[in-house]
Parts: sequence; structure tokens; C-alpha cells
Amino acid sequence: MGNNMTIKVAINGYGTIGKRVADAVDAQTDMEIVGVTKTRPAFGCDLAVRKNFPIYCTYDDAGKIAAFAEAGYDCHGGLSDLLAVADIVVDCSPGKVGAANKEKYEAAGVKWIFQGGEKHAMTGNSYTSSANHFENLNCNGTRVVSCNTTGLSRTLVPLYSHCGQLKVECTMIRRAADPGDSNKGPINAIKPVLHVPSHHGPDVMTVKPEIEINSMAVAVPTTLMHCHSIVATLPEGHGLTTESVIEMWRESPRVIVMNGAQTGISTTAEVMEFARDIGRKWGDLHEIFVWEDGVKLDGNTLYYFQAIHQESDVIPENVDAIRALMGTESDWKTSVAKTDAAISLYNNL
Amino acid sequence: MGNNMTIKVAINGYGTIGKRVADAVDAQTDMEIVGVTKTRPAFGCDLAVRKNFPIYCTYDDAGKIAAFAEAGYDCHGGLSDLLAVADIVVDCSPGKVGAANKEKYEAAGVKWIFQGGEKHAMTGNSYTSSANHFENLNCNGTRVVSCNTTGLSRTLVPLYSHCGQLKVECTMIRRAADPGDSNKGPINAIKPVLHVPSHHGPDVMTVKPEIEINSMAVAVPTTLMHCHSIVATLPEGHGLTTESVIEMWRESPRVIVMNGAQTGISTTAEVMEFARDIGRKWGDLHEIFVWEDGVKLDGNTLYYFQAIHQESDVIPENVDAIRALMGTESDWKTSVAKTDAAISLYNNL
Amino acid sequence: MGNNMTIKVAINGYGTIGKRVADAVDAQTDMEIVGVTKTRPAFGCDLAVRKNFPIYCTYDDAGKIAAFAEAGYDCHGGLSDLLAVADIVVDCSPGKVGAANKEKYEAAGVKWIFQGGEKHAMTGNSYTSSANHFENLNCNGTRVVSCNTTGLSRTLVPLYSHCGQLKVECTMIRRAADPGDSNKGPINAIKPVLHVPSHHGPDVMTVKPEIEINSMAVAVPTTLMHCHSIVATLPEGHGLTTESVIEMWRESPRVIVMNGAQTGISTTAEVMEFARDIGRKWGDLHEIFVWEDGVKLDGNTLYYFQAIHQESDVIPENVDAIRALMGTESDWKTSVAKTDAAISLYNNL
Amino acid sequence: MGNNMTIKVAINGYGTIGKRVADAVDAQTDMEIVGVTKTRPAFGCDLAVRKNFPIYCTYDDAGKIAAFAEAGYDCHGGLSDLLAVADIVVDCSPGKVGAANKEKYEAAGVKWIFQGGEKHAMTGNSYTSSANHFENLNCNGTRVVSCNTTGLSRTLVPLYSHCGQLKVECTMIRRAADPGDSNKGPINAIKPVLHVPSHHGPDVMTVKPEIEINSMAVAVPTTLMHCHSIVATLPEGHGLTTESVIEMWRESPRVIVMNGAQTGISTTAEVMEFARDIGRKWGDLHEIFVWEDGVKLDGNTLYYFQAIHQESDVIPENVDAIRALMGTESDWKTSVAKTDAAISLYNNL
Repeated sequence: MGNNMTIKVAINGYGTIGKRVADAVDAQTDMEIVGVTKTRPAFGCDLAVRKNFPIYCTYDDAGKIAAFAEAGYDCHGGLSDLLAVADIVVDCSPGKVGAANKEKYEAAGVKWIFQGGEKHAMTGNSYTSSANHFENLNCNGTRVVSCNTTGLSRTLVPLYSHCGQLKVECTMIRRAADPGDSNKGPINAIKPVLHVPSHHGPDVMTVKPEIEINSMAVAVPTTLMHCHSIVATLPEGHGLTTESVIEMWRESPRVIVMNGAQTGISTTAEVMEFARDIGRKWGDLHEIFVWEDGVKLDGNTLYYFQAIHQESDVIPENVDAIRALMGTESDWKTSVAKTDAAISLYNNL
Repeated sequence: MGNNMTIKVAINGYGTIGKRVADAVDAQTDMEIVGVTKTRPAFGCDLAVRKNFPIYCTYDDAGKIAAFAEAGYDCHGGLSDLLAVADIVVDCSPGKVGAANKEKYEAAGVKWIFQGGEKHAMTGNSYTSSANHFENLNCNGTRVVSCNTTGLSRTLVPLYSHCGQLKVECTMIRRAADPGDSNKGPINAIKPVLHVPSHHGPDVMTVKPEIEINSMAVAVPTTLMHCHSIVATLPEGHGLTTESVIEMWRESPRVIVMNGAQTGISTTAEVMEFARDIGRKWGDLHEIFVWEDGVKLDGNTLYYFQAIHQESDVIPENVDAIRALMGTESDWKTSVAKTDAAISLYNNL
Repeated sequence: MGNNMTIKVAINGYGTIGKRVADAVDAQTDMEIVGVTKTRPAFGCDLAVRKNFPIYCTYDDAGKIAAFAEAGYDCHGGLSDLLAVADIVVDCSPGKVGAANKEKYEAAGVKWIFQGGEKHAMTGNSYTSSANHFENLNCNGTRVVSCNTTGLSRTLVPLYSHCGQLKVECTMIRRAADPGDSNKGPINAIKPVLHVPSHHGPDVMTVKPEIEINSMAVAVPTTLMHCHSIVATLPEGHGLTTESVIEMWRESPRVIVMNGAQTGISTTAEVMEFARDIGRKWGDLHEIFVWEDGVKLDGNTLYYFQAIHQESDVIPENVDAIRALMGTESDWKTSVAKTDAAISLYNNL
Repeated sequence: MGNNMTIKVAINGYGTIGKRVADAVDAQTDMEIVGVTKTRPAFGCDLAVRKNFPIYCTYDDAGKIAAFAEAGYDCHGGLSDLLAVADIVVDCSPGKVGAANKEKYEAAGVKWIFQGGEKHAMTGNSYTSSANHFENLNCNGTRVVSCNTTGLSRTLVPLYSHCGQLKVECTMIRRAADPGDSNKGPINAIKPVLHVPSHHGPDVMTVKPEIEINSMAVAVPTTLMHCHSIVATLPEGHGLTTESVIEMWRESPRVIVMNGAQTGISTTAEVMEFARDIGRKWGDLHEIFVWEDGVKLDGNTLYYFQAIHQESDVIPENVDAIRALMGTESDWKTSVAKTDAAISLYNNL
């Protein structure tokens, strides 16, 4: 890229994650959306039109491309056409097609970012802003880890930085379906993930291998947020207190610490209502929510709860990852500040 | 009011409805918020500060007023102080205090608007934009009817205008709690309102006495929207078809008609997701949502479903009611157009 | 059948309905279970073993039959083997295979009963105990209508008998999944059945063509019961009162009338708790539950709510239908009394 | 007590727990119910009549006692009258009146059992069958710990017996309301217990002080069961394997171990369906349910899930506690076998 040139970003898959990444990229001054893909003309196309994002077809198939025009949408071509005008592609497709897509991206000579639905073994590289931005600089591609892993990284990486050693057990109480999904259950049950320990926690080690972590997971009948119940064993001589841990998180990017008893924000319902109240688009909460009165350091054992907005916490991470791969910003905190300031402009603050 | 003067609006009760009415009023060019009340310094105050709405205490009690300053909020006085600087007050208090408040409003010489939680018998006057804007012109006060009644009015008043006669039975499948309310149940039950017919339907007759209507109601474990299942008997010779009824609603203000099968918007979850997608603040949907493929006119019997966003459908009605009472706009359609255009500015469209 | 011979009943499909029909048949003195089918060796086989019901394979496939022995279950053969020892088969298979099964039953020369999941067009004959037992006498086969249609029949047929004419509109608020089903949703939405009027209500006319009825339906996030909101228009001169309607239902078989306010049984959750309290196996409630304080006759319009236990209300109807087809009991009330007395023995009353 | 005399048991509070304890006591040969109390004539009285349990009033108040007769129930007097004919009272009152009741029981010279809603500090003594039956022999009173603590005791006490040392962290995913309770929420949220560590886990130490345990808890929108996610650190040289831990639990009383993948019983919904299928009264499951495929011993760290039927797991414990306090059976395993054999008779096995 020459001077003053913006990074040209393609979004492959314009669904729950894709539509949010597109808006966040669009809000930045150093990057722009050159196109988004849809498998077929459907409601998501109206959103793209509204945002002035060029529409491409997921497939390089003349018939499928033509179907868009028939439905009244201006389609600019297939995925190959989109890749030809992009510097980097953010893959937000629903999964199972990752390996095949990676080949296409590499053949087209564009950099690529996958989401946490893909495995680290496929991408060979993973990313969160606070854990390993620097290690991702100028790489060909990476994987922004899942909402749960991103959430753990947000609170554990700063803790690790203070302690130098951590042993973590986490129980993930997961929302069973997203708010706009009316097909999935259960309606009235708790569903344990019987593979123990679960894959969720150890995934943190793909971005921060030094953190020792295991997890168990259950799905519960709610749509709003995941909730993590975390027990971290700190090393002897950690020098921290309950108060200093809280203070540390207050100063960490993309972590919100609030007192449940004082604010009345004591469940995931009220956390989401808070996000609506402060005018976030889609009612999103990019930040990880930690209850101040749910943190307790007892000797070497730290207990805390955190709530994760599964639809949105990885969005700013995708923006930062673009800068890391393109090599345009080597300092993660600078990128985070730039990303978040730009996004806040589209919120009703 | 003199020329070019904006209507000075007080909001008494800055909660679920109050915060939305305040924003909607604030978006208009012909009115402004002169203050909002809170019973005590709590999280809602931060919202008011963020919006630059002056904070007042619900009570004229020096101690309670002082508590705000102690908590770090700038409190401008008690309710009386607020009424002294207002032309009209929108009462969004949680109920049970309506009659007492009305006395205060009348003593202060300000016009007043209550919400549907109060009874028509108390206010003696009720309002929806399409039903009786003209009859409310220059009145001292009125009641914007409930979300359910407003919703029925939106689709039944235009139907009545076409037919001249209607007999309606409605079953209301009601959300049991709002999204930000984590105390109320049931978790896994259907709760019929055993008083039959219920009060909901007949309330339509407070704004349009000519419509004959009864209703039954149940509460179900969901937080998003109410859903109405409606059977309307049209008079002989109505001259309508399923298609012409749909077309009529397409042209009616604050009604959205969409095809569930074609758009995939087939439950209240997807309706709310649509509202988030089009950038509505709080994810609100002021419009009543009618499924095109859920409308069927069979002889003289019209069947249809509609979904009601209980947190927000009455918001624009409150704005129109202000203009009616203040006598600044006698044509309801002009007021509706003005209100909705101004509100759309604060959405991320 | 000769003297003193019990009717030999086969159950094809030993799932939610099949296991209940089997127990109800087993409790009668004039009929016995000669076998139940499973598609493969699974947990349901343990139940059959516990009850001493011979197990057969759904398929006449040597390999599939052998799989049972490998899993440690004594399998007596395939469906053909079972039909060879049966007088009548109750088909409780999950659907889509009805027409093919009917051919097998007819080829084997056994009488057959299908469930409400099959269409009347396939069976040509339908059944509920109170509506048309007599018309089903000695027929080759019939269809016990769905839980919803059975429920409507229980309260509407006696009403029709009093009035001679009825026009009914019903809104069905349906449980979205059964209690033991953890895959289906929605978790937080109302899902209207967009085909209006829905097929549920008119199905009553397959057993009682004289009743004019339409319906609309929604699915809601609960697992316990369906709830019907019913508006029935009675003919002029009906001579009924709210009280006499209630009294009529009190005297109708398989209808329970209770006062919600007095008993505290005011939602489907408390209705199901009542069924557990009175010791019903599986916590079932074969009866239709009508809230006394939810009944109101206003002129010619009758409003009422009823709750339907979808897993069990059709069970005693299946037993009566066996007697109808076999021609062993021509009076429906005698059959109902016999069925219910026998079933009550297996409850913990 | 003389030879051959049955223990006379009073139930103070005939609600969710009381009605179940009464039935379980009634099923034993060495004890009998001499009366149950209700605060006022209500539906629970019908149950008592059905079971032939004498009804008493919770209060020694002539007017309140008389109200029962007026409602058509035979009331045998107040609490004092009941205590006068009892050897022991099981207190199943809703809480907050424990200390006052204890005084009454001691004044009446009867032994007493409280439930887990009361604090150990009030009773000074706590009980689970496997942990400390012997220590409770001939005591004046005790407290049967909560459903959660009982559940932890069932699996941890045998583990402790093998290992001699345990450090346990448990996250409790709790059902927010019981199935028959339609008032409590949340409908769509996760509600963390912000006091960390929570009181639940450490309560195990009131019956087994040697087990080191902490817990965190959340409430989720389901009614069926609690689910525990447990991480136990075993001492070096524990000599156990995943398989031997499973085998140990298979041999432990009141623990059911089943394989989720093989049986299809993979959520709390299917666990409860299993309890209904095997004919348990109320669909209860006295046993703790452990998923075989959810157990994993990794070095010294043992991970497992267990499901707790909150309405019933403490019921057999109450029966055993009666024998402990009355000194009629000193061996806990003998008491457990006697209790469970008698209870199984009332199930439809």
C-alpha cells in the first residue's frame, strides 16, 4: 500500500458476524469495505444496499450470480471478482468451508482472517488484540478466536502480565441460541458438554501459550450472553488484592467493571439493557462485563464472573487483526484505541 | 406559546417508557425536554446526563433532592420546580399515583399525558394518532392508550374506515416480562388472564367507540413482543379482498407488512432482529408488524396476526399527543409524518 | 373373538404416545399387549422389558432384528411377526409412513388405529370417544385425532348437544416442544402458524361435521401443555348460562373444571403440578382442564380457556377406539367408564 | 419406644418437600405419619385427605383451626396438639421461622429435623446419610442439608473415602424456579450469585469437615434440575482412574451413572423423562445423576457433571435421619437399603 491508501477489505459471509465486522471496518479511516458476499439474494442484501456495500455472490457461478439481478439486487460478481479488488478478506462464513476458502484466498494473493469457528490447526495462527498482536504482524493470515476465548483473553492476559503464572478452571454457562434464532432449543433444560474438559478454555493457549487453562461447558435456555464462572490460581507472592485486580481490569481495554448491587445490573438481562441504553448499535456490547462485587481474591485463589456478548465481542478484534496482518500498526494499544474511537462514532453516545 | 417557540415538555418518570419518549421529543424541532424526574439517584441519571436532560426529583422533598447532589448528580429541584418551567408533562410513572399526579399537574396549570397503565375513567380522555387526534385538540390532558390498544388501533381504525362496521375477537399472547426484567416469570408455563373477556380489547373503544371488540389474553415465557391473533367480522358488502386489506395496511402509518416465508422473518425473534438490523435505537420497532402471509379474508371473516413491540409502539403516539393537546397541529397525518421523520434521524439508517 | 377372549393389541412405535397407550391397554381386563416395536435396540427397550411387553423390530429385516439380541434384548421378530399374533394394531410411529403401514396392516388382516399426525384423507375415518364412537363400530380402522382436536371435541361436543348449532373460533397457544425434548426451540419468541385459518380447528369436523370451527395457532417457549382460547357463538334461544355451561362440563367425561383463584391453579405449570400431586403416572393429565373462572357466557358468545396435556389426552381415546373397531362395546359412555376405571388403578391414587 | 412400636412422625409444613417426606415415611414399616400441618385450608388438604394423613393447623389459634372445618376439612388441632402425639417432627416450613419452631419442639419434648433452608448455626447439627449418620445417632435434632449439598455429599464422600484428601471447586448451574412455580423468573437471563465463593459448596463441610470445597453459583431459566460442574483435585498417589471413579459411583447408594451418548439422556430434560418413564411418583429422581461420558480424571484433576433433582433428592435422607435421631438403626447403609426398598414400592416399577 502506498501513502494515504486505505486497506481494501472484503467480507466473505454477511451474516451475524459479517454484518457487524463490515460496519466496524466501515467506521475506520484507514480501511474500507470493497464488497460483501451472500450465497443468494435474501434479506441481508437489503442491509448491504442500505450501507452502500457492493454485493458479490459467494460462488463463481454465473447462474447464481444472475439470480441477484433477477431479485433486483446489483451483484458485482463472484468471490473471485471480489478477491481481485481486495487486500484482505475477513471470512465470516458459517464454517466447514474454511480449508477450501483458505486455498482460494492464497491463490488470489490476499491476506485472510478466519473466525473462531475454525480450528487453529487449519489456520496455524490465532489472534486477540491484547495477547499477540505483535506476533501477527505482517502474517499472511490468522484466526480471530471465538467469543469465549476472546473474553477469557481480555481478563486473563492482563492478569498473567501481573503474575507471570496462572492456572485457570472455567465453567462456561453458554446461551443456547442467538436472539434472532428461533429454531434451536432447549426450552427448559441444562445441556452439559459431555466432552470434559471442553475445548473452549484451552483455546486461550493458541494466543497465550503460557496460561494453563481448562474448562467445562453447559448450554442453557437463554439467548443474550454467555457467562463465565472462573477460578484462577495465582502464584505465591502475587502481590494482588481483590481491589487491585478490579483496578487492573478497569484499566484494561474492552473490559467493563460495574457493581451489580449498586447499579441494579445483576443479570445478563440488565447488562444487555445497559448496552441498549447507551445506544449501542444492535444493542451490542463489545466489552467483557465483569461484576465488581462478583470478584474475590482469597489467598492465591481468584474467583470471578464475566459476561460475554457472543454476537459482538470479537468485532473490534477483527479490525485490529486487519492492521496486524497488513503491518500498518505495530502497537496493539494504539490500534485498539483507534478502532474503538471510530466505532463509538456510529453508536448513539 | 408565541411564534417560533418550542413546546416545553417535562417527563415525570424516566424509565422504560420515559427514556424513550424523552429521546423522541428531543428529536423534534417543535418541542424540547425541560427536565426528567427520578425518584432517587440511580443508573437512569447517567442516561439523562449523557443526553443533557435536566434532572429533577420526583418528590418535593429537600432531603430526597439533596441525595442527588450527594451522589454526584446535578438536581434542579422537585416535581413542582419542573412543572413550573413546563408547558406539558408526560407522566411515565409506574402507576398507582395517577390521580394524585393529575391534581398536581392541574394545580400547576400544565397540560398532561398519561400512559395506558392508567384507566380511562381517571383521565376521561384517551388518544391514538389515527383514531382521535382531532377530538383531542386543545384538551387539557389525555391518556395515550397501552401498547396493545395502540397496536389494535393501528390496524383496526383503517379497516373500520373502509367498512363502517366491525366485530372483532382478539386473543393476545403477551410477553410475560420486558427484556431487561429478570425477576418475573413464568419460566415454563402459559398463564391465562382468567377474567374474560379481558380489558385489553374493549379499551380500543375509548379511542374509537364504533369498533365492537372483545379479547382474551395469556402470558407466555418470552420477553420480546406481544402477538395478537385477530378474527374480525366485516359487514356484508365490504368489497375487500385479502390483497386489498394488505394493501390498505401497507399505506397505513406505523404498520409494517412483510412476508414471513420470503424474508425468513417468521417469529417475534426475527422481527426484533430486523429492528436491530435497520439500526433502530434500543432495537425498537415503533411500527406494528403484520405478516402478509398470515392475513386471510374468508367471506366476511378476516384473520390476521400482528406483533407489538411493547416497549416502543406508543412512543411516537406520545409525541403526536403533545401536538394535539397544545393545538399546534390539527391534522394527524401531518403530525405523524413530522414525528416519524424526526425520529428516524436518531436511528442508524 | 370367542368368549372370554381378550383383544390382542400390537403397538407399532413405542415412543411418547406408544408407551402410554401400551400401559393403558395393559391396565384393561378386556385387552392385552402382544408386542411393541422399536426401530433399534435403545432405551425404550428397557421399559418394555420392565413391563413384560414382547419386543419386535419395526422392520422385517433379519439384520436389524438380530441387532436386538446383540444388545441383550429378546426380540420376537419383525413387524409381520407381530401382526400375525394381533387382532388390532395401534400405530404410534412418528409419521410419514402411515400410508405404507396401512397397506401392511390390511394385508395382514388386522384392524388399525392411527394417531392425529396422519391426515383424515389417508384413513378416511376419525375418532373421539364422545363424538362418533358409534359410527366407528366394527370399522376396519380409524384415526384417533390429535391432542388439540381431542381437547376441542371434549368440550364442544357436549356443548353442541345442548345447542344444536355452534360457530367456533379458537386460538391455540401451543407448547413448542415436549418436556423430554431438548433440541427444539424457540427459546425466546412467539411463532405464529402463518397458514390461517390453521388446520387444527377444522379437524374437529372429521369427527363432528356439524360443528363449524376455525382456528389460528402460535407456538410458545414452554413444554408443558397447550392452551386454547375459545370463542363460541351459540344459537339464539340457547337457554344456557355461564353456570349451566360449567355444570355441563363438570358432568362431561374427561373434563376437569377447577377454579383458578380458589385453588391457586392458575397456569399450566400448576395444572401439571396438580397431576403430579394426584399421583398420575408420568404426571399425565388425560382430562381437559377448564378454568371455572375463565368461562363467561355473554349473550350468545361463550368465552373459555382450556389446557391440553399434549402427551396424554388421547391415550384413553385409543383404548375406546379399540373397543369400537372390535365391536365389543357399542355405548361410548360405558367404554369410557371402563377405560378410566382401569387406568386409575395404575395411578397412585 | 417399646418393642414393635413404629416411630410417630409429624410433618410441619405440607408443601413441596413436606408432601414428599410424608409419602416416603408412610411407605416405611418402622414409622408412620401422625399428622401434617397446613397454615390454612387449601388444595394441599385434599392431598392429605387422599392419603389419610391427619390434618393439623400450623398455628395454635382457635379461629384458624376452625377455618378448616368451615372449609370442609377435619382438623385435629394446632401444632401443639400434633407435637403431643409425635416422637419426632420433620420441619418443612418455608423458612424464617426455624428458631422459633425449634423452641416449640424442644418444649414439647420431641426430636426435630430441619431442612437445608435453615442455617447450620441455628441447628448446630447437620446430616447426610453417607457422611455422618453415625455422628447423628440419638441426637435431639439435626438439619438435613440442602438438595445441592446432599448432591455433593453423595459423590464426594465416597471419593474422599478413597483419597483421604480433596480440594473441590464447584460451579452450580441452578434451576431458577420449581416446575409448579409460575411467578419467578428470569425468563431469558443468567443470574450470577455475586457473593463469591457462594455458601453452597462450603455447606458440605457441615457434614464432612475434611472436604475442602468452594463454589460459585448462577441461576438459569429452567425448572427441572440443578447441574453441577465439578473440578476436584485429588492427592498425589490417589491410585484412581476415570474408570475406577465411575465404578466407585456405580456402587455408591443413590447415585445413578449413565452414558449420555449411548442412552440419549444428554440433558436435564431427558434425565427427568427417564424418571417419569421408570414410574417415579411426581417424576422424582432421588438419586444424583452422573453422566459416565462427562467424567474425566486427568492426572490429579477430576472433572465431572452431575444433575440434582432439587425437589426430591433429600427425601430419603429425611427418612434415614429419623432413624439416626431415634437411634433405631446405627448403620447408614442398612438404613439406606431399608428406606429405598420401601419407597420403591410406591413407585410404578
